[in-house]
Amino acid sequence: MRSMKIYRFKHLHTIQYGVLREDKLHPIQGSLFGKTNTKKAGIPIGDVRILPPVLPSKIVAVGRNYKEHAHERGKPIPERPLIFLKPPSSVIGINDVIIYPEATQRLDYEGELAFVVKKKTQKLERTALAQDHILGYTCLNDVTARDLQDKDGQWTRAKGFDTFAPMGPCISTDVDPGNLRLKTFLNGKLKQSASTSNMIFPVFELLRYISHIMTLVPGDVVTTGTPSGVGPMSHGDRVDVQIMGIGTLSNTVK
Amino acid sequence: MRSMKIYRFKHLHTIQYGVLREDKLHPIQGSLFGKTNTKKAGIPIGDVRILPPVLPSKIVAVGRNYKEHAHERGKPIPERPLIFLKPPSSVIGINDVIIYPEATQRLDYEGELAFVVKKKTQKLERTALAQDHILGYTCLNDVTARDLQDKDGQWTRAKGFDTFAPMGPCISTDVDPGNLRLKTFLNGKLKQSASTSNMIFPVFELLRYISHIMTLVPGDVVTTGTPSGVGPMSHGDRVDVQIMGIGTLSNTVK
Repeated sequence: MRSMKIYRFKHLHTIQYGVLREDKLHPIQGSLFGKTNTKKAGIPIGDVRILPPVLPSKIVAVGRNYKEHAHERGKPIPERPLIFLKPPSSVIGINDVIIYPEATQRLDYEGELAFVVKKKTQKLERTALAQDHILGYTCLNDVTARDLQDKDGQWTRAKGFDTFAPMGPCISTDVDPGNLRLKTFLNGKLKQSASTSNMIFPVFELLRYISHIMTLVPGDVVTTGTPSGVGPMSHGDRVDVQIMGIGTLSNTVK
Repeated sequence: MRSMKIYRFKHLHTIQYGVLREDKLHPIQGSLFGKTNTKKAGIPIGDVRILPPVLPSKIVAVGRNYKEHAHERGKPIPERPLIFLKPPSSVIGINDVIIYPEATQRLDYEGELAFVVKKKTQKLERTALAQDHILGYTCLNDVTARDLQDKDGQWTRAKGFDTFAPMGPCISTDVDPGNLRLKTFLNGKLKQSASTSNMIFPVFELLRYISHIMTLVPGDVVTTGTPSGVGPMSHGDRVDVQIMGIGTLSNTVK
């Protein structure tokens, strides 16, 4: 498979997708989810505003998918993937600001590997090639108001505020989701570092499991859970989620 | 305000909105969320297929919003609205079939009043007119795999399967959400009967609360919780959610 990093960006008032080659974005012609060509002429990446890589109809998130994170939260390891939803209204892109809500006193980062669904996926069979249903991978920060998570029981409010799903910088199509190094930095200091090989339920199994509950459609995002090392952010902090082969998602808190 | 029942329907391969007058649907010209005119010529309602009244970017649902239902579930009354999300992929319309998933042994109906958001709503002030942000009201069946709800803790799977959000038959624009009789029938037998005046958190308060968490956009749906009387459905059952001034949402289970 050919390596591709796909960016969604705004250039001269037009929102489009493009493939990065060296330092230029080559606009994609045709649908992102079908056959595509790229234009020969590229736009310097410094001339564009990078947007969230996709606007999903839904974001399915997975809780406690790394053993060490379940332990640090004092929670049991789930017998099956523990899924929840983040609303589309929570999506922001690289360099956008995470807004600290008044309702919380404890706002945590959670660096995660996310994937973008390529085609309609419903009740995926064990024998089906899961990777054919995935367009690619991105970084996601599953921002969480930890006090509200514990208070509400249901996680929707704690994880659903506007700006609580920073995503990006791009969709990388050619990475092995079972063997990626994920790192989260707070103000440049390493806080989370894990291999995605330590997931309890790996990417293809998550896709299959979720597809037996709800139909996934092109552009839907599944974020696969955070490893240990979560912690609080303060006003003015900068958080970077970095995944090998994808890039770095940087956001500040205000 | 003028009484209007707005239907979304398919007629001769075209999906459109129309206003019901007597037994005819008068197609709406312009956006449903802006200023609209209706065509003089109507289409007999018998000639169309009625669709879910809206395709929301998100469905925000409210748990335990009637005291008696919290009691029958043996759960405390929440101090603030207990919100969760149902995915857009769970939406079906009147007469569509609720599919009984293999993963559950206990599938419950939950008749609810839902409302459709009219315009972008973010951090609604106490003094703002909440009703200006609501296009109208519809019936929703918050179908729930009760065993999975208790097993998972998070309610997303239990309430998120495909077909778990029957909605309709129409959007009724002129009802008083604080004083509606809601009834649910299973195979014609009355199972739930309550007034929406018994909600713990009434409609406008829910709208305001949610708007301080996540931005609501036109077409988003908020479903306001179920009264007591929930119970299981079996293969072949028919369930009707009926709200005065809106209509009856009928579905069968398969």
